[in-house]
Amino acid sequence: MKQRIGILGGGQLGKMLLQTALDLDLNISILDPDPECSCSVWTKNFTCGSLTDYNTVMEFAKDLDVITIEIENVNIQALKDLEAAGKKVFPQPSVIETIQNKRTQKDFFVSHNIPTSPFIKVKNRDEIIANKDFLPAVNKLGVGGYDGKGVQLLKSEADLDKAFDAEGILEKFVDFEKELAVIIARNENGEMKCFPVVEMVFHPTANLVEYQFSPANIEASTAQQAEEVAIKTAEAFGIVGLLAVEMFLDKEGKIWVNEVAPRPHNSGHQTQKANVVSQFDQHWRAILNLPLGDPTPHSLSAMVNILGEEGHTGIAKVEGLDKILALEHAYPFFYGKKITKPFRKMGHVSILADDFENLKEKVNFVQNNLKIIAQ
Amino acid sequence: MKQRIGILGGGQLGKMLLQTALDLDLNISILDPDPECSCSVWTKNFTCGSLTDYNTVMEFAKDLDVITIEIENVNIQALKDLEAAGKKVFPQPSVIETIQNKRTQKDFFVSHNIPTSPFIKVKNRDEIIANKDFLPAVNKLGVGGYDGKGVQLLKSEADLDKAFDAEGILEKFVDFEKELAVIIARNENGEMKCFPVVEMVFHPTANLVEYQFSPANIEASTAQQAEEVAIKTAEAFGIVGLLAVEMFLDKEGKIWVNEVAPRPHNSGHQTQKANVVSQFDQHWRAILNLPLGDPTPHSLSAMVNILGEEGHTGIAKVEGLDKILALEHAYPFFYGKKITKPFRKMGHVSILADDFENLKEKVNFVQNNLKIIAQ
Repeated sequence: MKQRIGILGGGQLGKMLLQTALDLDLNISILDPDPECSCSVWTKNFTCGSLTDYNTVMEFAKDLDVITIEIENVNIQALKDLEAAGKKVFPQPSVIETIQNKRTQKDFFVSHNIPTSPFIKVKNRDEIIANKDFLPAVNKLGVGGYDGKGVQLLKSEADLDKAFDAEGILEKFVDFEKELAVIIARNENGEMKCFPVVEMVFHPTANLVEYQFSPANIEASTAQQAEEVAIKTAEAFGIVGLLAVEMFLDKEGKIWVNEVAPRPHNSGHQTQKANVVSQFDQHWRAILNLPLGDPTPHSLSAMVNILGEEGHTGIAKVEGLDKILALEHAYPFFYGKKITKPFRKMGHVSILADDFENLKEKVNFVQNNLKIIAQ
Repeated sequence: MKQRIGILGGGQLGKMLLQTALDLDLNISILDPDPECSCSVWTKNFTCGSLTDYNTVMEFAKDLDVITIEIENVNIQALKDLEAAGKKVFPQPSVIETIQNKRTQKDFFVSHNIPTSPFIKVKNRDEIIANKDFLPAVNKLGVGGYDGKGVQLLKSEADLDKAFDAEGILEKFVDFEKELAVIIARNENGEMKCFPVVEMVFHPTANLVEYQFSPANIEASTAQQAEEVAIKTAEAFGIVGLLAVEMFLDKEGKIWVNEVAPRPHNSGHQTQKANVVSQFDQHWRAILNLPLGDPTPHSLSAMVNILGEEGHTGIAKVEGLDKILALEHAYPFFYGKKITKPFRKMGHVSILADDFENLKEKVNFVQNNLKIIAQ
């Protein structure tokens, strides 16, 4: 009998996992609270329900053999009970639990000697004000932050009114040279493989990641340092699955772990087209304890997120697709979200090129020509 | 409003089309008579019904904008009426109709000056016997042949009792040096792109394709000749979609068209992993009149069909998957057919390598280690 596999979450990461699951003809079921989520039309085995409700998760998983996630905000107690009942739950509930809260995540890094910026745990805004000598710092919510939400840079006392009046952390600001990411896969046998280091490029004026490219434009010794940190972190967690490790490279050439995600990650989307095996293929191999695939890149690549156009809210419509498909080696992937909103992640474009100048030109072309507007 | 697209047929080709349709988040519906066909679990929009019944096809397509196929054996009158009603039907019903019958297909080649082996149309076995001087020849059924069925080599008079007592053709045997195939895509704008020429390798003793590889090991001038023939054939049909052109290369270096298929084809499966854009991606671009993608190969590649093991009929079970996934650059794709039967196509493995010796070694390893048996 084929293993029955469930994914908690049916958003874009679930959709890309589902797509690669067709290769091995895996038996997949999906749970998501949104009846019109990205995955809902792409499988007969879709259940609409809450990911954070104990009973819903238990009911969804009762006939499954393997349970995985595409989002961290899930009911941990259910996953622990499913694990205790002998089901394979990967990433492990203990890993998700540690990562769910930025406070326990930071404690974990410190106790495992993983390089990370100094921090203070805070309960509310008053505690942040009391620690104003710690600025410049980044104030992060303990739970519930995602996609840049729940993160606030506090440069000086003047910014203190922007601080969250909630449980979180105050993390010493790293004046980084570059922001990097490494996605590492680890299977039950302990086999590990890293995707090449990805580099984020920031918009020169707006404080936004403009695009990312792979492999990063860094010294070989820095790349090695980044991989070693990723391996150390994956081993510390003992994770089975993918671990996306976001890092800062400081001006002295040292790597600091910013935060981690125990699943496929935005920083690995270009692997769909640019690498021999994608992060989504690798996720299945890791959690099913299969030999890991080769993460070698075919070429230099970039990835541009396609965000909902400013000023547009409503039924999404793609503009400029023809131009993008006519561009050599530009591959759009759309998430199938019905409604667009300003800055909502609606898709991405993977771009391949032989040299960096050409890559940058194509990135600009995509950014100027592909739009998601309301109908 | 998004275009609504229907595929007639939900077998392995439909499944691979569905998989790539996730990239552009196409709105796909599928019709197939088998409730457990390869596609049935991978879409919410699955309809179980006959592909050859006029009313079923009309009902399935009534709310669709674009209709395509993954198998030729479909109701042509329905497709013609849908086309007349203003729907996009690609490949065009006239093309499918011509190709459905080997007799009209051969007539088409002759009338369009496409190089093909001489032939005689026959109504029954008596007419074949009356033409015994034409042997050695290949006797093909006019309609209903597929996967090597409906094709019989008649070397000499001694083989006449193997001839089909049915309408078909008697085609002069081509003493070929190699069997080649080219898949060409053509969109409504008339843009055309060829995938590299693929070469079939036959088992030294059994009369069976053992594997295929790409690009073919032929002179550049021969590859050019093969591409020119593919372009000429696609233009003659005016096809919108994919055309797989199977060819013989004779011992004098001349190309002869054996037969064509107006859809994704077994000879293009390795493009999923080995080429920048796969035949399935290209099919969507062609029928949606989008710019065609780049069919350039990343490297040398081979494709091995995974057939049901002899002596095994029943619920299918894969043996040896771990070994295949541990092999560098071997990528299995399973069709999700519940029941295995001897020689049934159950999946394939795409293999990448830098040189031919290494490719051949991996092909042998896959053939010796991956088995589909009954549980």
